[in-house]
Amino acid sequence: MYYQLISQCTQNLQNLESWLDKAEQLAATKNFDVGVLLTSRLAPDMEPFIYQVQSACDYVKGAAAWLSGQTPPKHADNEQTLEQVRARIRKTIAFAESVKESQYAEAAERKVSMSWAPGKVIGGEDYLLQIAIPNIFFHLVMAYAILRHNGVDVGKMDFLGPINWVDP
Amino acid sequence: MYYQLISQCTQNLQNLESWLDKAEQLAATKNFDVGVLLTSRLAPDMEPFIYQVQSACDYVKGAAAWLSGQTPPKHADNEQTLEQVRARIRKTIAFAESVKESQYAEAAERKVSMSWAPGKVIGGEDYLLQIAIPNIFFHLVMAYAILRHNGVDVGKMDFLGPINWVDP
Repeated sequence: MYYQLISQCTQNLQNLESWLDKAEQLAATKNFDVGVLLTSRLAPDMEPFIYQVQSACDYVKGAAAWLSGQTPPKHADNEQTLEQVRARIRKTIAFAESVKESQYAEAAERKVSMSWAPGKVIGGEDYLLQIAIPNIFFHLVMAYAILRHNGVDVGKMDFLGPINWVDP
Repeated sequence: MYYQLISQCTQNLQNLESWLDKAEQLAATKNFDVGVLLTSRLAPDMEPFIYQVQSACDYVKGAAAWLSGQTPPKHADNEQTLEQVRARIRKTIAFAESVKESQYAEAAERKVSMSWAPGKVIGGEDYLLQIAIPNIFFHLVMAYAILRHNGVDVGKMDFLGPINWVDP
């Protein structure tokens, strides 16, 4: 299920673009610079919106890379404009989608290390379940929360994105 | 991987209890009623902390029940105190942990319907990936964000909880 889980996380990252549309609409309607939203935070000692997006991107990129036996491509954290944020999301998605299901065949046997936990490693399944998925959602929801807190008209369905309903 | 994924979500719900410890500590230190945090929101048209916890609980309970062929036990949304919130979390976890791995054997073939999408159903795998997991994390992170926004000293490791590092 590695491929399905990473594809779903990639879809949730993709959903972020529609939140950015709504952020732009609010900025236009209220006549403020949308950059204000990009640098907004929920608390002075929390990271701003742009960081939340960069971090969500990096956990998607990392999961797709490490679990398929690749080193993640480097994406510099230098975005300042909304268009640059969109570009970051798009190159992350392009990389994640470049990984084929068959490349995750040995995902469970891989060992992954994190820069914030030097000297430690974790098995592929635990990495996906305990680190990648929780962190991807943490940063996506925090990005959503920052926009919502600032009046952007995003709702739960914007967060969830497409759902494969079938006939009963 | 149904059992592993729902177990992980259950662990992330369990982590919430340590955030409540820190909420209580802040309330005691600053001498305010912790109930203020339970009714706090990030925006006037968003749901308060207690609702976020109830909702996270219900998606964990629902996933464990529907994917194992059971009807979820009913848990009334009547919590008002921090101890009642803890009790809600604990009975949710007790139910989720009562489901054995073998009971998820037919999870992928099950059809699930949601009260907020009348007349529609979704397959077991899509339900878990597109609805249950994103909603569980959505409401958990929103609960975390409400506390963090109000000065509770929670950090990323409180959110992630235990991680199974192994020797390199």
